[in-house]
Amino acid sequence: MRLTALAATLAMTLALPTLRADEGMWTFDNIPVQKIKAKYGVALDGAWLKNVQLATVRFPGGTGAFVSRDGLVVTNHHVGRGAIAQVSSAKADLVRDGFTAATRAEEIPVPGLELMMLVSMENVTDRVNGAVKPGTADKDALTARRNALAELRKSEEAKTGLTCEPVTLYQGGEYWIYGYKKFTDVRLAAAPELQVAAFGGDADNYTYPRHNLDFSLFRVYENGQPYHPTAILPFQPKGVSIGDLTFISGHPGTTFRQQTHAQMVYARDIGIPSQLKAMARQKAALETLSATSPEAHRIAAEAIYGIENGYKRLSGQLLGLAKAENLRKVEVEESSLKASVHKDPALQSRCGESWDRVAQAVERQKALLKEFNAISPGRVVTLGHALTLVRLAEEEAKPSALRLSEFSDGNLKATKARLASPRPVQKPIDATLLTVILQEAKEELGAEHPFVKAVLGGQSPEAVAKAAVEGTKLGDPALRKQLAEGGKAALEACTDPMILLAKKIDPFNRAIRKRMEDEVTSVFNEHGGRIAEARFKVFGKALYPDATFTLRLGYGPVTTYHNGTGTLAQPFTTFMGMYDRHLGWGGNALAAEGGAWTLPQRWLDRQAKLDLSTPFNFIYACDTVGGNSGSPVMNTKGEFVGINFDSVYEGQGGYYVYDADTKRAVATDARAILEALRKIMDAGHLADELIGH
Amino acid sequence: MRLTALAATLAMTLALPTLRADEGMWTFDNIPVQKIKAKYGVALDGAWLKNVQLATVRFPGGTGAFVSRDGLVVTNHHVGRGAIAQVSSAKADLVRDGFTAATRAEEIPVPGLELMMLVSMENVTDRVNGAVKPGTADKDALTARRNALAELRKSEEAKTGLTCEPVTLYQGGEYWIYGYKKFTDVRLAAAPELQVAAFGGDADNYTYPRHNLDFSLFRVYENGQPYHPTAILPFQPKGVSIGDLTFISGHPGTTFRQQTHAQMVYARDIGIPSQLKAMARQKAALETLSATSPEAHRIAAEAIYGIENGYKRLSGQLLGLAKAENLRKVEVEESSLKASVHKDPALQSRCGESWDRVAQAVERQKALLKEFNAISPGRVVTLGHALTLVRLAEEEAKPSALRLSEFSDGNLKATKARLASPRPVQKPIDATLLTVILQEAKEELGAEHPFVKAVLGGQSPEAVAKAAVEGTKLGDPALRKQLAEGGKAALEACTDPMILLAKKIDPFNRAIRKRMEDEVTSVFNEHGGRIAEARFKVFGKALYPDATFTLRLGYGPVTTYHNGTGTLAQPFTTFMGMYDRHLGWGGNALAAEGGAWTLPQRWLDRQAKLDLSTPFNFIYACDTVGGNSGSPVMNTKGEFVGINFDSVYEGQGGYYVYDADTKRAVATDARAILEALRKIMDAGHLADELIGH
Repeated sequence: MRLTALAATLAMTLALPTLRADEGMWTFDNIPVQKIKAKYGVALDGAWLKNVQLATVRFPGGTGAFVSRDGLVVTNHHVGRGAIAQVSSAKADLVRDGFTAATRAEEIPVPGLELMMLVSMENVTDRVNGAVKPGTADKDALTARRNALAELRKSEEAKTGLTCEPVTLYQGGEYWIYGYKKFTDVRLAAAPELQVAAFGGDADNYTYPRHNLDFSLFRVYENGQPYHPTAILPFQPKGVSIGDLTFISGHPGTTFRQQTHAQMVYARDIGIPSQLKAMARQKAALETLSATSPEAHRIAAEAIYGIENGYKRLSGQLLGLAKAENLRKVEVEESSLKASVHKDPALQSRCGESWDRVAQAVERQKALLKEFNAISPGRVVTLGHALTLVRLAEEEAKPSALRLSEFSDGNLKATKARLASPRPVQKPIDATLLTVILQEAKEELGAEHPFVKAVLGGQSPEAVAKAAVEGTKLGDPALRKQLAEGGKAALEACTDPMILLAKKIDPFNRAIRKRMEDEVTSVFNEHGGRIAEARFKVFGKALYPDATFTLRLGYGPVTTYHNGTGTLAQPFTTFMGMYDRHLGWGGNALAAEGGAWTLPQRWLDRQAKLDLSTPFNFIYACDTVGGNSGSPVMNTKGEFVGINFDSVYEGQGGYYVYDADTKRAVATDARAILEALRKIMDAGHLADELIGH
Repeated sequence: MRLTALAATLAMTLALPTLRADEGMWTFDNIPVQKIKAKYGVALDGAWLKNVQLATVRFPGGTGAFVSRDGLVVTNHHVGRGAIAQVSSAKADLVRDGFTAATRAEEIPVPGLELMMLVSMENVTDRVNGAVKPGTADKDALTARRNALAELRKSEEAKTGLTCEPVTLYQGGEYWIYGYKKFTDVRLAAAPELQVAAFGGDADNYTYPRHNLDFSLFRVYENGQPYHPTAILPFQPKGVSIGDLTFISGHPGTTFRQQTHAQMVYARDIGIPSQLKAMARQKAALETLSATSPEAHRIAAEAIYGIENGYKRLSGQLLGLAKAENLRKVEVEESSLKASVHKDPALQSRCGESWDRVAQAVERQKALLKEFNAISPGRVVTLGHALTLVRLAEEEAKPSALRLSEFSDGNLKATKARLASPRPVQKPIDATLLTVILQEAKEELGAEHPFVKAVLGGQSPEAVAKAAVEGTKLGDPALRKQLAEGGKAALEACTDPMILLAKKIDPFNRAIRKRMEDEVTSVFNEHGGRIAEARFKVFGKALYPDATFTLRLGYGPVTTYHNGTGTLAQPFTTFMGMYDRHLGWGGNALAAEGGAWTLPQRWLDRQAKLDLSTPFNFIYACDTVGGNSGSPVMNTKGEFVGINFDSVYEGQGGYYVYDADTKRAVATDARAILEALRKIMDAGHLADELIGH
């Protein structure tokens, strides 16, 4: 409840369609160049855009950018963390201690790490739609389009030699084939210590003011030599200032901005609160476990961390949905779109009823939610393995389209990888979480519900959970491998108690998933698609498509916002702020709150060398979501001024509705990277390379 | 929406009465010594308590404490600001530039500044109640008690030679006469610059992390010599640490914690939102004015500041009331109290219906609100003067009890002082705000409402406002004095257009105020009092009384909380944090946001001298409200470790409901005061005196 917010509500006279402030994740074929020029006086030309496109690379789950002529790529520490861990050893924990390659010979190859550069974008909408003959039924049309896309992908790959991916934009308004150049020899050049990269740990995640040196440097090689990219974003050692316009290129993952008002109200009132409630219950149970011994505390900590992280993201989303003017905006825009649809007989016939159909499906979703939530393996690792094993042979025998989604061709590899994971199972965690799940099922569905009767068989949740977890041997990857390879026969002979429990759960879980799919999800897909079609026909490319983990450009100035403590957030932080918080939590000696604000020893030993007034992190009004991690932040010249690594808690509602008051991205300043490389990380040679010396 | 909060809701099994965490503003006759000992292992004895009581002094609107044997008193800069301004001159702006008396001879007397030390507390409950003969009607009983208190005050003053005040605690559960020693020779010894005392300005008000050097030092003299107090709180130069128990003594002003659930729901859903809406509208109008010229910008800034300050406090209160578990707690405790009342026939007869009566009065309040808000002079200065003048002669002729409240014996002096104020009237501000008020009246009440017809007379709100403000000469204090002294005759002859407007408003305003008093306020007083009586009979002194601007003690540890940005607040800040924010806003050169985070030049010139790691501000879980400004924060030894100056935005709901998750007070650390005195303020001699050297 802010004055600005309230005043905005009072003054609201919406023009439609509204793009508020610097909303938008724009595809590179449709950058709003005129809009940017009109508002900021900055004219982006084709060369500028091409350079940014080719300098940006996709990491697994994130983004990076070429920043030197000799192939240095910068990304977030948290995007590169898996790779850094992979090249660590028992002797050298590079995640904890950081790393600097003193020479190129010392740069460490990361086998399997692949970076993708978007080289070509081919609009195939007409060809895809042309594959559908007039009068084809909806379901058959979907198949025809999918087949056409698959063919086009193959032919583009053959033609270009690139790695190609089909891309659906505007929920089917446009179809594209994107062609990527793939880099497969990627080597670690430098990374700071985890404790500085993620200073403040989970508590600070999604928040600001922030003090994270969240970067890592890799170098791309080809044919054993450093790759020389044609496009780079050179570091600008003078950085940016308050009010300066910035740009961000990257791969925002998923947004739900085109959901209907009814779906968002559901998310606000039922969907997210029910998830938060379940997480709170799990967390409370794990905290009880944690208090029983130091060892229990250790193993519970990671599980609790995982819950807290998701909890904060969801509660931030809820905060956004709970802001009345956000849903009011959705309602107003929906009314406007409906009015346009009603005026067009073809559109009216195609999707005039779609909003009502979605709303009816939301009602079904409400009715099914209790069973859907209760009849699930949740976060119980061995139960998850058991269900996978129970289903594997049966599902693999079906055509992909008829399988449970985790067994479809697209997902099967990841599902099998989870099954094969050597990650040790923590039985006390599994027992705790399974107890919670069974207790909830009993409370929510009642003792007489067939599922509850089947899984509990008259016993208490605690007893059933204890017997299954204590007796199971599914923590052993070798046994899981054996069962997975043994097919139906091995499974039928298996007397592992967790397998037996999974067999009881399997039919109930399949049944409720099928009902949810048939009565809810399929309606959302069908009619959500039709609404998107209408939106595209009415507004066309004046709007940007929802995020799809494909390359996008955003823009907005370095600026403040009214934050949740009631003040205006400082646009920049400095190294002073990091030491301030370190000391404010009692320093390394106290290591308060699990040591979240402790510092690596060399950051204390070399503190006097640092220019403490160096800008460290900053906030800017670009429109981002997860997937933008590691995205380069640029000035109007296309120079690198910072690396995006997060967005603020108060703006997490942006997954659903863009809110200009609170949507702020958080970056590590280029100046902090240079200063740390030079003064702390013994990497002056890399700093010099980044600024082109 | 926090995990802790939600988990608390889920786990809530309340025992009654609940005092959560370290709730309470305890009177010195009823310190919960056993409770503190049980929880913290700290045993407060009579000598400790007596020392704290006698070392604490009351400032006008705040608190202070004796901190040296030679009579130095520390309070907030913002509590002492009026005095500092008073002893400033055109040549020496001590508020802006700060001040240090190099010798005692240079200390500057502040005429009229009076400090009060609580010396005696006499429980006169029996004598007051004894003045009421059995069978007396309620209304007569009230008068009898008031007369008894007045007599007791006089006799106590005669007996002790002290300045005595009657004190009503527990809404009438107890009556006391408090006796104060009054100090009237108070001299300014030192104060930092406003810009450091209130670093971050209005934006940072009510927030944390904070960086305010919010202190000033005065010295008390008697007979021309420094006063030597028997009780002092010596500075502890080592300060406190995270988790340390602290105590706070001071004069919390007003709390509404004993309102009924119905009253709080009203405040949440109607009362506060309607105030916020009105403020937002006024602010928007002033911002429009502000944009018309640099001069308009200058004069509007202060008016906007005043609105924003109130807006933030109220929106913080709303945040607390909107937290479901807070009102749930009120509901549960109310049910419990009702159950106890129902079991006791005498109580049942006295207040069994009181909750319903209050709820009915809330319904009346809702019905009257629109007219009550619309028919008011609001913040229009000349209209306020005009209404006072129109009423003065008539009201003064009545007995005090029958007058409008601002003319009662207790308030008349302040009302006349406002009338005599030399503060210049800004006509553009008055015109803007009067237009807003008249527009609102027309919109809310309709053009046909008798009040609207009477004041507008068919003209537009803009025209009426313009005519009245442009034509009025009431900005001239001499004219106001003349009219005030001229009585009815002068007023009848007066043709000032604002006086004429006030004459139109007067009868409508009287009528709606009377209805609100008769139908709402009097019911709240009568039945709120009866409920308080019941609470006192059931729970006695296990509870603390609502705040009454009398001396209280609170306690609680230095600790963090989950703040509104989503992280855990750092318990301490340091000087590094201040420079970090200064730089993060672009420094003095940019002077962003009106220069709220700029620093005085000597704080830049002498920065290198400071130990930047010195703890600057900290948060602690003591229960405070406005009036606690300037309160000493002490360690378990009764040593001064900091000075309270604010409480956080997220916990402002504490005016209504104590919330252990968010109620955090903010103090300036004693170590920062000593460091600043020595390194910046050329006041090493005062620092030495404070630590007893």
